[in-house]
Amino acid sequence: MNKVKATKLLIIDNDKGPIMRALRMSDNGYKKFGEIYFSEVFYGKIKGWKRHIQMTMNLVVPEGLVKFVFYDPNLGSFEEYEIGTNNYIRLTVPPGLWFAFQGLEKKNLVMNVSDIEHDPIESENKNISEIKYSW
Amino acid sequence: MNKVKATKLLIIDNDKGPIMRALRMSDNGYKKFGEIYFSEVFYGKIKGWKRHIQMTMNLVVPEGLVKFVFYDPNLGSFEEYEIGTNNYIRLTVPPGLWFAFQGLEKKNLVMNVSDIEHDPIESENKNISEIKYSW
Repeated sequence: MNKVKATKLLIIDNDKGPIMRALRMSDNGYKKFGEIYFSEVFYGKIKGWKRHIQMTMNLVVPEGLVKFVFYDPNLGSFEEYEIGTNNYIRLTVPPGLWFAFQGLEKKNLVMNVSDIEHDPIESENKNISEIKYSW
Repeated sequence: MNKVKATKLLIIDNDKGPIMRALRMSDNGYKKFGEIYFSEVFYGKIKGWKRHIQMTMNLVVPEGLVKFVFYDPNLGSFEEYEIGTNNYIRLTVPPGLWFAFQGLEKKNLVMNVSDIEHDPIESENKNISEIKYSW
């Protein structure tokens, strides 16, 4: 079904600054390369809800801590993750799920590796109040 | 020849946090997807020198400010760039150039989108003192 897949990522410590893996072509979550972009989310702010019709997302938080909530409209179910440098996990998100995310630290940076380029007609938006969730 | 290509990237402002483009499959600098990783470089620290034999790098700094120096051993020439959120530019770096980079702010994060997966035998390292440059 439409499930989010969480993959623990490697961090290699270094006295000049760590190396943090994000996505390799041989990884399970990798389908195809479309586009990479960053979405910063300020402390306490919530971006969403949004749903992609085609896009598979690969989400990594290389700075800060971000709470993601996914809503499956077929099951009426929620999934929640808090990911960031202290819980360094990649989320592979299939199309069809509603999602929203909140910044939990001072600076929070989400990277999305998408399998298609941004296309405004393949996503839908709802106001944050339209899917009831207790943030 | 072996030249670094600099591409100005779009930042889309938003009251919850900006969207920062990084790389699209239709961009000039994009060849093929191999791997994405982050390399943090602490304030004042210098990582390098390193040279890739096969890898083309696409470098973006979504946090902080980083000075990159590239050395072309054929020409004996240097190229320098300071890139980060206030000078949001992608550097496309062909194989063959020596490079080193220094963190200029409190937190500095380099993203590399490589056209191959990490392979220790396709790169060489030199100590920072082996190529004379006045940091």
